[in-house]
Amino acid sequence: MALRNPKGSDLTPLFDPRSIAVIGLLKEGFFGGYVVIKSLLNAGFKGEIFPVNPSYNEVLGLTVYPSIKDVPRKIDLVLIITGARSVPGILRECVEKGVRACIVVSDGFAERDEEGRRLQDEIVEIARRGNLRIVGPNTAGIANPAKGLIPNPYEMGYEKIKHGAIAVCAQTGMINPQAFPYGDLGYGVSKICDFGNKSDVDECDLMEYLESDPSTKVMTLYLESIKDGQRFLKVSKRVVSRKPVLILKSGRTEQGAHVSASHTGSLALDEQIFDAACKQSGILRLETFRELFELPKIFASQPLPKGNRLGIITFTGGVGVLAIDEGAKYGLSVPLLSSGTRKKLEAIFPGLGKRIVDMGPPMALINNYMPVYSEILKMVTLDPCIDSIFNVIWTGPSGEFMEKYLTIYRELQGSKKPIASWIYGPRLPFVREMTYRLEELGFPVFPDIEMAIKALGMASQYAKTKGGDQ
Amino acid sequence: MALRNPKGSDLTPLFDPRSIAVIGLLKEGFFGGYVVIKSLLNAGFKGEIFPVNPSYNEVLGLTVYPSIKDVPRKIDLVLIITGARSVPGILRECVEKGVRACIVVSDGFAERDEEGRRLQDEIVEIARRGNLRIVGPNTAGIANPAKGLIPNPYEMGYEKIKHGAIAVCAQTGMINPQAFPYGDLGYGVSKICDFGNKSDVDECDLMEYLESDPSTKVMTLYLESIKDGQRFLKVSKRVVSRKPVLILKSGRTEQGAHVSASHTGSLALDEQIFDAACKQSGILRLETFRELFELPKIFASQPLPKGNRLGIITFTGGVGVLAIDEGAKYGLSVPLLSSGTRKKLEAIFPGLGKRIVDMGPPMALINNYMPVYSEILKMVTLDPCIDSIFNVIWTGPSGEFMEKYLTIYRELQGSKKPIASWIYGPRLPFVREMTYRLEELGFPVFPDIEMAIKALGMASQYAKTKGGDQ
Repeated sequence: MALRNPKGSDLTPLFDPRSIAVIGLLKEGFFGGYVVIKSLLNAGFKGEIFPVNPSYNEVLGLTVYPSIKDVPRKIDLVLIITGARSVPGILRECVEKGVRACIVVSDGFAERDEEGRRLQDEIVEIARRGNLRIVGPNTAGIANPAKGLIPNPYEMGYEKIKHGAIAVCAQTGMINPQAFPYGDLGYGVSKICDFGNKSDVDECDLMEYLESDPSTKVMTLYLESIKDGQRFLKVSKRVVSRKPVLILKSGRTEQGAHVSASHTGSLALDEQIFDAACKQSGILRLETFRELFELPKIFASQPLPKGNRLGIITFTGGVGVLAIDEGAKYGLSVPLLSSGTRKKLEAIFPGLGKRIVDMGPPMALINNYMPVYSEILKMVTLDPCIDSIFNVIWTGPSGEFMEKYLTIYRELQGSKKPIASWIYGPRLPFVREMTYRLEELGFPVFPDIEMAIKALGMASQYAKTKGGDQ
Repeated sequence: MALRNPKGSDLTPLFDPRSIAVIGLLKEGFFGGYVVIKSLLNAGFKGEIFPVNPSYNEVLGLTVYPSIKDVPRKIDLVLIITGARSVPGILRECVEKGVRACIVVSDGFAERDEEGRRLQDEIVEIARRGNLRIVGPNTAGIANPAKGLIPNPYEMGYEKIKHGAIAVCAQTGMINPQAFPYGDLGYGVSKICDFGNKSDVDECDLMEYLESDPSTKVMTLYLESIKDGQRFLKVSKRVVSRKPVLILKSGRTEQGAHVSASHTGSLALDEQIFDAACKQSGILRLETFRELFELPKIFASQPLPKGNRLGIITFTGGVGVLAIDEGAKYGLSVPLLSSGTRKKLEAIFPGLGKRIVDMGPPMALINNYMPVYSEILKMVTLDPCIDSIFNVIWTGPSGEFMEKYLTIYRELQGSKKPIASWIYGPRLPFVREMTYRLEELGFPVFPDIEMAIKALGMASQYAKTKGGDQ
């Protein structure tokens, strides 16, 4: 496309800048440049920070420069929070200064009105000629937790984000740290990016960057539109062959697409084209907003399965039946366990399990329960008839099994088969604590039975896409 | 069916007994009659409790009787936790004593083996001849929180369940208080019933009982099989015309049905028959286990909508687009707001909303934000073009808006249009607290955008089923 920057894939200055200038609003408040700088300091950003605003001399212990020209050093990344009309002038200064990446938080562009659309065309033109990449406008920005780069323009209520293997990109600020509770999660993320109006940097640029980003093992995207169908198809095909790509696409209905255009200024592409692209490239398609954050977990910390044979360990037959039904949607089958495993299970408790292992009946009757449980979990994990494991955990009325469960899972670290867990129990605090701690250990826990199965189903589908050679 | 009790619908002794006998295991532990009695006492059960066990004289301050014949008073309900083989004899004694309802917690019946199946046939025959209703065997039992009737055989870690309008029935103990955190919920339930093996009391009996139970406004069921397709069709049609019935049916796949048979001893009915029954009677069909507890909330505390026109108030366009797309699945449309509302919104902030109200852009710019927000929420709720409302709440970095939100919602109590809310924010503790408190006020909060929309969609569908005359 004419407007795309020739150096399309080099987003290093965006995600790994050695220096960042923050231009605009420096007043204390819950939104603005002051918050950006505070967030960077809190998150432990190691690079240089240059606040820019003609009305201030100092903010948060940092020297404030009247304009970007006055900053005495090289600037890798500029973040702009000013009125829309002043953005073109600032960008010209950025180009003169040799800046390579800009985050334009300012709104009032194509999403607002005709004047805004003209302004947006103008800044894209400046960027293109000046070899400058723009994220936004109308964006809540980006994050790279490993580098303490959380230039968040909104107060978020926490300081750090765990570093992990999941990249989250979206055409909405709903994935940024002021909206999503990254600070309360047991798992971590590698990169966050809100495209905003996608005037320049778009889903394809991001996929290309993340494809070779060593921190990122899996990427999850929320899209309302695709900027360039042909490029999307080509790029996604290549990227998916290296890393799993999960996408939630909205704007599927005419009315949804219309409203999307009015809030992001982007035009929605025909739904069928996107559908076809998913099928051809092996993109894993999501269905709900929550899945954006849940389903990538299986790829972030677990190995890919070698096949579609699901093992189930539960405390109640009902969950087993639900899991079997759900697994069928994704081509998972629940086979007979190997004769060796079946014999051992039968010796532990009659009828304990042939296909699914139902720990419910023996639970009240077995003395020294946890060692037996541990043995069973390992037995199923090692069973040659099983490729992936759905394990159900009951936390009990007072979380009494938590430490023992964690010990057992620690012994499963490095297992060659993916394990998805679902935790339930009569007291939410224990369910939540156990979820957090298990995810800290690298074992994904899903909020629903069905989502755990979907995660394993997607892992199996992706393994097939990749040729099953992992 | 031959085995069905003639006095099919009278389950009053089961859910509202004046006296209950608990037969079997009285040893302290996390399972058994001791726990049942402790749970009844903790929950404040007002009726008489008669422990029965020949080896004890007293338990928890109550006299223990050697056998049921020795209990000097009338017994309405008997709960049995003994070995399977002793159950027929006990039931004969119950019949002699004039007992009308029994909960058989004991397992080892049709779900175990052939001998168990014969035992189960035997107890059903005893019940039928003796005019006795049986829940189970192999059940975790029932509950009626309004009466302090929580005869739970498993330690649950909390004492009370809030009384509410939702009845939860299932062919699994996963809905009972030892598995689901009723004690941590802002909303309440009217009745809980685990059918277990469904040897006698089944889904139709429950629907008939709940149909005329004044506490129950909505019923939600998890089924793996239907005992009698013809009766199910007839009963559900009549019940649905009075109260909404939500069903999650598993055992949909052949393998799932097979495993279901092995853990409940019930045969699964052809999936297509159930499908047809749902369509003919207007049963609302669920897709995930979590929906069993979430979706009925819209019926429990909110009025039915008069039509399918959805109003959306959000802080971000992306959520609006997702909501519109999702609504289309359930026939919800998102209309232009009335010209009066649109004018007022435009006066508050340019572009604030024509179809969806996006509070994001003005949020940072409006002084005295909450009164304006309150005005907008009321304006949309009263808009003549709108039948139901999806409201999105952002709790902020420190839950600072919580009290004000609650005040605003208090003013919406008694609204004639259903409101479904979704809460998000950067800190989970505030999201959770706000969810709890809003549900205490009677406003359902859904864990997902899509589920909130589905709830409103189902409310709209049900209103249509009922003739839209509510």
